[in-house]
Amino acid sequence: MNAIKDSVHDWIPLDPVAADLLDTAAVQRLRHIKQLSTVRLVYPSASHTRFEHSLGVYHLARQALDSLDIGEKRARTVRAAALLHDVGHGPYGHQTEEVIRREVGTDHDELGDLLYETELAGVLETHDIDPDRVAALVRGEGELGQVVAGELDVDRMDYLVRDAHHTGVPYGTIDHGRLVRDLQLRDGRLVLGEGNVQTAESLLLARALMDGIVYRHHVSRIAGAMLERACERLLDAGVSIDRFRRMADHDLLVALGEHVPELGGRIERRDLYKRALWVGLDDVPDAVTELSREGERQAAREIATAAGVDRDHVVVDIPDRPRLKESRTRVVVNGVVQRLEQASELVGALRATRRAQWRLGVYAPADERTAVEAAARDVLGLP
Amino acid sequence: MNAIKDSVHDWIPLDPVAADLLDTAAVQRLRHIKQLSTVRLVYPSASHTRFEHSLGVYHLARQALDSLDIGEKRARTVRAAALLHDVGHGPYGHQTEEVIRREVGTDHDELGDLLYETELAGVLETHDIDPDRVAALVRGEGELGQVVAGELDVDRMDYLVRDAHHTGVPYGTIDHGRLVRDLQLRDGRLVLGEGNVQTAESLLLARALMDGIVYRHHVSRIAGAMLERACERLLDAGVSIDRFRRMADHDLLVALGEHVPELGGRIERRDLYKRALWVGLDDVPDAVTELSREGERQAAREIATAAGVDRDHVVVDIPDRPRLKESRTRVVVNGVVQRLEQASELVGALRATRRAQWRLGVYAPADERTAVEAAARDVLGLP
Amino acid sequence: MNAIKDSVHDWIPLDPVAADLLDTAAVQRLRHIKQLSTVRLVYPSASHTRFEHSLGVYHLARQALDSLDIGEKRARTVRAAALLHDVGHGPYGHQTEEVIRREVGTDHDELGDLLYETELAGVLETHDIDPDRVAALVRGEGELGQVVAGELDVDRMDYLVRDAHHTGVPYGTIDHGRLVRDLQLRDGRLVLGEGNVQTAESLLLARALMDGIVYRHHVSRIAGAMLERACERLLDAGVSIDRFRRMADHDLLVALGEHVPELGGRIERRDLYKRALWVGLDDVPDAVTELSREGERQAAREIATAAGVDRDHVVVDIPDRPRLKESRTRVVVNGVVQRLEQASELVGALRATRRAQWRLGVYAPADERTAVEAAARDVLGLP
Amino acid sequence: MNAIKDSVHDWIPLDPVAADLLDTAAVQRLRHIKQLSTVRLVYPSASHTRFEHSLGVYHLARQALDSLDIGEKRARTVRAAALLHDVGHGPYGHQTEEVIRREVGTDHDELGDLLYETELAGVLETHDIDPDRVAALVRGEGELGQVVAGELDVDRMDYLVRDAHHTGVPYGTIDHGRLVRDLQLRDGRLVLGEGNVQTAESLLLARALMDGIVYRHHVSRIAGAMLERACERLLDAGVSIDRFRRMADHDLLVALGEHVPELGGRIERRDLYKRALWVGLDDVPDAVTELSREGERQAAREIATAAGVDRDHVVVDIPDRPRLKESRTRVVVNGVVQRLEQASELVGALRATRRAQWRLGVYAPADERTAVEAAARDVLGLP
Repeated sequence: MNAIKDSVHDWIPLDPVAADLLDTAAVQRLRHIKQLSTVRLVYPSASHTRFEHSLGVYHLARQALDSLDIGEKRARTVRAAALLHDVGHGPYGHQTEEVIRREVGTDHDELGDLLYETELAGVLETHDIDPDRVAALVRGEGELGQVVAGELDVDRMDYLVRDAHHTGVPYGTIDHGRLVRDLQLRDGRLVLGEGNVQTAESLLLARALMDGIVYRHHVSRIAGAMLERACERLLDAGVSIDRFRRMADHDLLVALGEHVPELGGRIERRDLYKRALWVGLDDVPDAVTELSREGERQAAREIATAAGVDRDHVVVDIPDRPRLKESRTRVVVNGVVQRLEQASELVGALRATRRAQWRLGVYAPADERTAVEAAARDVLGLP
Repeated sequence: MNAIKDSVHDWIPLDPVAADLLDTAAVQRLRHIKQLSTVRLVYPSASHTRFEHSLGVYHLARQALDSLDIGEKRARTVRAAALLHDVGHGPYGHQTEEVIRREVGTDHDELGDLLYETELAGVLETHDIDPDRVAALVRGEGELGQVVAGELDVDRMDYLVRDAHHTGVPYGTIDHGRLVRDLQLRDGRLVLGEGNVQTAESLLLARALMDGIVYRHHVSRIAGAMLERACERLLDAGVSIDRFRRMADHDLLVALGEHVPELGGRIERRDLYKRALWVGLDDVPDAVTELSREGERQAAREIATAAGVDRDHVVVDIPDRPRLKESRTRVVVNGVVQRLEQASELVGALRATRRAQWRLGVYAPADERTAVEAAARDVLGLP
Repeated sequence: MNAIKDSVHDWIPLDPVAADLLDTAAVQRLRHIKQLSTVRLVYPSASHTRFEHSLGVYHLARQALDSLDIGEKRARTVRAAALLHDVGHGPYGHQTEEVIRREVGTDHDELGDLLYETELAGVLETHDIDPDRVAALVRGEGELGQVVAGELDVDRMDYLVRDAHHTGVPYGTIDHGRLVRDLQLRDGRLVLGEGNVQTAESLLLARALMDGIVYRHHVSRIAGAMLERACERLLDAGVSIDRFRRMADHDLLVALGEHVPELGGRIERRDLYKRALWVGLDDVPDAVTELSREGERQAAREIATAAGVDRDHVVVDIPDRPRLKESRTRVVVNGVVQRLEQASELVGALRATRRAQWRLGVYAPADERTAVEAAARDVLGLP
Repeated sequence: MNAIKDSVHDWIPLDPVAADLLDTAAVQRLRHIKQLSTVRLVYPSASHTRFEHSLGVYHLARQALDSLDIGEKRARTVRAAALLHDVGHGPYGHQTEEVIRREVGTDHDELGDLLYETELAGVLETHDIDPDRVAALVRGEGELGQVVAGELDVDRMDYLVRDAHHTGVPYGTIDHGRLVRDLQLRDGRLVLGEGNVQTAESLLLARALMDGIVYRHHVSRIAGAMLERACERLLDAGVSIDRFRRMADHDLLVALGEHVPELGGRIERRDLYKRALWVGLDDVPDAVTELSREGERQAAREIATAAGVDRDHVVVDIPDRPRLKESRTRVVVNGVVQRLEQASELVGALRATRRAQWRLGVYAPADERTAVEAAARDVLGLP
């Protein structure tokens, strides 16, 4: 069995399926997609990729499956799903998800397509693995789907420790060794065994701290919103959605430089817009938080007109209302499976914290900030 | 300027005062007092000492004082206080505090004595440092006392990262670099500057997680309670309090082996009592949680009698009601100094969490557990 | 003073010059140039950039200058040189150096041009820093030039620890804290103070081990040689050298995909050539090791013809004869400055080791390997 | 399967044999024996114990045995030997080895005795493990004995990384994951598989650097020599060798304080002798390097008399001539098993380096140093 050196998990042994999957273009492409897209404009060491993250998820899946003891055939399929869970992503990962979804619809299963169309299909067939099953696992379906995509999935465990390692921000450093060892299946549900309320809480807390300090840092959010706007412009300029969604990061950066030079250049040179507006949830009318993406774009256009600035100089960024998926983690307490939100006082507080951290942002070039702020307050109906 | 290699902070440069203080017997004694006393019976790598911790506290104090910019003369005194903050401790650190306090009274200032009586006095005089001022700083008095002993003190910052490093439990790994850089004095109070609510929360969370998983691990608590009982027996056996409180860990371990061989041997060989009773706060009558130490010992005697076992075979462990000192940390929010408990939803939840983790314990040899449990329920009036 | 979080050195404080330099396009471009170019095809976590490395070099320079105590004005210039030392690089860093040199000549000072032509000039002028002096320091001139580029430079210290951190290979982890603290200037030469023969040896050993296991790993060398060949083809295809040398990595990858699709695609998908020939120094005639790059290309053409394969399917890779620059490090031994090669037995052995590790490589697609090997032996006159 | 948290290897799973062995007094005693005895007087963080080291050796043995694939029954015995390899040590580990050997003879097998006499015997019998086999493995006998005690043993791998972690000196950080994965048995010999000359060299280099900077630091050597002298005095004072060799560190420290107060107090307070003489191998007559321990003591007495100082004020420290056991490591090179000294140029150089680092030391209180130096030169026949 071959092995790859990883800066987080040290040596990652590869089973034959993984070794073959790694050699496909679909998986190699992940070398060219950064894990944290615009976060590295704040934390310069964070230029790690979805390729190494996928290896890490595969590795933790293998360890978790050892604890679950489910037989080699099923385990092999779950490990393949873990390795492939991100190959359906567009360039810059989650950052282009929304743009792609608008074009192809939410029902489109990009990963599913890849598993049938590309050389991935051949590798899976050689090793007698059902592509439908892999796609279902990545969607989190079935009891083992929770290992790959659920409240206690190994995806989250890997990205927390990996992002901590690469940003230098320590808060993501969870005890993943204990988490994967104490996973159990009870009545078709993935749970953490007895004595792990605090272990589950630690996962929740790590996510909450990394969220505020890393993932939702305002500079990263500004760059992300600018990037999303630039991608819309790229599609408007005639780049097809099919070409777009299979781009790697370098393809996108060059295409932006060619077709949307001002925004593209600003992102590349980290010459970012500033916050013209930055408002908490209590100060925003419900009608605004519930705007569709189309409504958001419409508002941006109106603000630009009212402020008398170029349409591309106004970016509106309204995050979804905060959720706390991890709160539904299942833990065994005195022999009974409970949701973490029942077993832990922290869940409610973290929900309130995330609500308090929520911000609507309107961003613009530094010298147009004042005009845009006034226009934005007016258009969005803020005091 | 000389420097010492530390596994946590790498090279720690020493100023001339520190270099001289290090050569005194009072500071060298800290090499022989473990930082985490009985915790290492759970986490075997955690055999680090108060000596390296004191160096770390000195180091972080120096960095914090650089941010505060208070002048070299005052800074020198604070650094000396940081280095000396633990020299007044008895053997096994906090574990013998209560036993000593009962004998010498809470007013006794052990550190104060040492600063006048021992060679420490000479070193301080040579460097023109006022011993009274050092003792006051260690008691947390004055605006700079908060650097040494307060909600935002460097003592806590060092022990969290150090204990995480040595136990292998990652939760104490805070961003101490940011904390010491963002400390400010405002109106005579130590505060964290703007933008640090989450930084303050992270300190609180790190403490809460380390508390549950490390500091209050039940095995460590059992050993700690046995040790406290053994120390009482040692004093009963005629060892003077003056000799006792200046012992190092090895002196105590040998003295216990000689004078209290059964309990001493059990602690040395990690042959510990088991939990006969382990009850949460809601199930314990107020009269019991409010018992004095003398009341606690009296209860233990009654339980032993009722269970028909040797007096030393029953150890009663009733922790103080949970407090959350860090909740009073001051942070600047929108230009205004606030208490963290005002600025953070998490504080209330952590208070509830600590309350939920609170346990009264009664410990006994494995084969006498059943008899002791029944007797304990009866004596303590539990259902 | 502002600060940036780094995963290797934690917080890096920025002086005003550094803060302004960071905002220039020339420095921001380094975010898009990987530190280890093709090494990440072997060690997937190693996707760090010259941007974070430049920050690290700046940081260690500041610490080294603190030890040297040379006055703020001179120190400011050295720190600027440390931050800018890599901005003159082409895409993929050292990997394109040779290609560029052939086109523009060895006398061309790319960095010098940038310091006068771009916004860098304005920043330096604002802070009263002489661009000529910066360029000279980066060339290693003068006693302080040795801090930036010499046997004991902070460039090497940073890349060893950083590459170790990001690859996961531990051998580069030197004690840089001690190295920067013990630097001294003696008679205009940078030396390591008394007691540091082993410290100097450790730097040499770290480089030697990282060289064999990381920097010269054969997979990385194959990809590097393919990349160099692809770049030649790109220039042949009409891309101007001026555009080429200011590309970032993503520009190059896209340009290769467009103009040299077979080689470019193979590099992007890690579908690499294999070793057709891999021969040690003793088995290679001097005439071959002394071939110029033009001679190397000529040989590749002849081999391709003889083997009857496409010209691009043969890549010849003849490294320079091994040198050991660090052997000339100066250390103080019993009060006398010596070269490390005089003070250490290890230097000679490392020289022999590097000689033993030297390999000539000829690479080709897997299925043409046999034909190419035979042709290559014939053309190069190997047994 | 239970698991213990370790700061070096994270979670260490325990098999049933290990779980039972850990509960014996003989293994628990290792909690009270420091791994690096007097080294912690130089590196204050290095207060780790033989207990955690033994767990680490057990853990690496398990991983190595997985690679070797030798069957569970044999593997179980080797794992037990790995866990028990240090239980025969006296207090302060290697530091008292020589003193004990002089009293009981080199043929005495302390571990063997323990395996039959103590509760260890019962545990081994329960799990059907032959004590003779365990003792033989710890002596390095048989092909599997090399895993526990040989040139490539897991003992060395664990102590290098562990001592690096705890001292903060990075040089011991080897790639143990690769070492244990690439071990093979060939014709009854433990070898490193193909492609590992540099891996083997790295182990050798790590040992050499740690030797010079950590293990043989002169301050640690002075304290060690003083300790050895104090132990001799303790035995002279009537403490029996049987009691002595089963002491833990705390027992020894207290016994020294009682019976040899001056030397004992100096060690405890780190109030150490200074180097009166410190001479390299070339300057020492063969007759002196070949002195027996008795001869060494005799010389010390003569020096004290000649210098007119107290007998205990002169400590003579003549290390054995340097050896390089790791040079005999076996590696596979081009399919053939070779000794590392044949395959690596570094071995010869390291031998020379260790020879160059060798020092004879004579230590005395600071104010008697001059008198002692003169007397020592005279007695030992040095120029």
